[in-house]
Amino acid sequence: MESQFEVRIVWGDCDEQGIVFYPKYFYWMDSAFQTLLRDASQSVRAMREEFGIMGIPIVEANARFVASATHEEILRIEAEIRRWGETSLRVEYKGFCEDRPIFEGFEARVWLGRGSNGRPAATAIPEAFKKRFVK
Amino acid sequence: MESQFEVRIVWGDCDEQGIVFYPKYFYWMDSAFQTLLRDASQSVRAMREEFGIMGIPIVEANARFVASATHEEILRIEAEIRRWGETSLRVEYKGFCEDRPIFEGFEARVWLGRGSNGRPAATAIPEAFKKRFVK
Amino acid sequence: MESQFEVRIVWGDCDEQGIVFYPKYFYWMDSAFQTLLRDASQSVRAMREEFGIMGIPIVEANARFVASATHEEILRIEAEIRRWGETSLRVEYKGFCEDRPIFEGFEARVWLGRGSNGRPAATAIPEAFKKRFVK
Amino acid sequence: MESQFEVRIVWGDCDEQGIVFYPKYFYWMDSAFQTLLRDASQSVRAMREEFGIMGIPIVEANARFVASATHEEILRIEAEIRRWGETSLRVEYKGFCEDRPIFEGFEARVWLGRGSNGRPAATAIPEAFKKRFVK
Repeated sequence: MESQFEVRIVWGDCDEQGIVFYPKYFYWMDSAFQTLLRDASQSVRAMREEFGIMGIPIVEANARFVASATHEEILRIEAEIRRWGETSLRVEYKGFCEDRPIFEGFEARVWLGRGSNGRPAATAIPEAFKKRFVK
Repeated sequence: MESQFEVRIVWGDCDEQGIVFYPKYFYWMDSAFQTLLRDASQSVRAMREEFGIMGIPIVEANARFVASATHEEILRIEAEIRRWGETSLRVEYKGFCEDRPIFEGFEARVWLGRGSNGRPAATAIPEAFKKRFVK
Repeated sequence: MESQFEVRIVWGDCDEQGIVFYPKYFYWMDSAFQTLLRDASQSVRAMREEFGIMGIPIVEANARFVASATHEEILRIEAEIRRWGETSLRVEYKGFCEDRPIFEGFEARVWLGRGSNGRPAATAIPEAFKKRFVK
Repeated sequence: MESQFEVRIVWGDCDEQGIVFYPKYFYWMDSAFQTLLRDASQSVRAMREEFGIMGIPIVEANARFVASATHEEILRIEAEIRRWGETSLRVEYKGFCEDRPIFEGFEARVWLGRGSNGRPAATAIPEAFKKRFVK
């Protein structure tokens, strides 16, 4: 299942060169991840309740930038979970302004539940969660 | 008691005109408020524990901008609680780059405890809290 | 002429209390101002070219917060220029999540052209600009 | 030459879990890069003047997160240019709160001058620039 996230780039997203200040792309990648969860009828809050996890924190984030973008443009991000580990997952992102590729990135996130001692620990991702993303 | 907060303005704080994008000043006003709490041996977390409040949320924020500032400059903010209401307080801020006045602003914040029905409500600010700011 | 700006609040907009960190509202007010310009077939870049101004910087910003909002909610902001001064204008904003009022705010902005000595100075707002907002 | 950048994490940097919202680390990596330039008596503006470049934009950014951090903690980032390419450089970062490692990351940046046709292009990094970082 692939999700689409769209945002109009605004004045406040851009730096002195008039182009997007790059950390903002990671904010949008995170936003695109929330959209991906929403499209699978999930949210971090719902996952805390249903699966008892503490969260799904980031362990690695990466982006390669191929072109700049500026305010007034609409940035579209395609997001998809491309790799499922035992306790982690990898979400991949591609960003475009119209047909112009802007960046490619990924996030590695871990399923943070509780270990046998009750402390936060990476635990196995339930099949029930994974199934929501198969479409 | 007046607190001093200092921050070096960086590239990512500035917009296409090369000057600070104004919402950032409110982020710094909030940061200066944390400094003010710290100087009074307080923090939002500590106040939740000691006074049982839920927080000290903003009800009004204002800033008037008199000059622009840019990256590499050091912004110094003076912060002081200038008005104590029964359930609210008003923090006033003045921002400078060296001797150049940049902005003046204020935040009105409310002491958010729990009402008689157990729900969040503005409650009286304890004298024990106010005393910490008298110096 | 009144403009509508909508944004879905995301995880990264919220603080430890799970509610929007207030400076973000000013970022959205600024975004709503860009929308207002766009609806009038304007943009800061276009205004620099057409009217030769340097920009339309903020001189005062204010918001009063009446209710909190959290991620996944959709914030809708109504924006309108409500007051025209000789060299400045005042934009007023009202924010809602569905029918729940969240905040009211305003920005005062100045028309920054060049004075007779060639230096940046507040100058008279052209009628041609004002007319775009009459609908 | 290695630079040290320090920042006190504030309330507004943290998310609903009470930990730093990860894109903020990239903002701080970029800030640490500015510090590195400053320690070498450089800045993006100075480089534009001295070397005629348009900028030194990011082409890749990466961070691996090993522990979370929260407000009131002081984040210290060590930054160093660890690899010089013909037209690009790689800055490496290590973040700590006291002795606790928080993250490791890197930025790849390109020296953006003008090609023979006058258009922006990756060009050779001058030796005069590199020398500033040898200490």
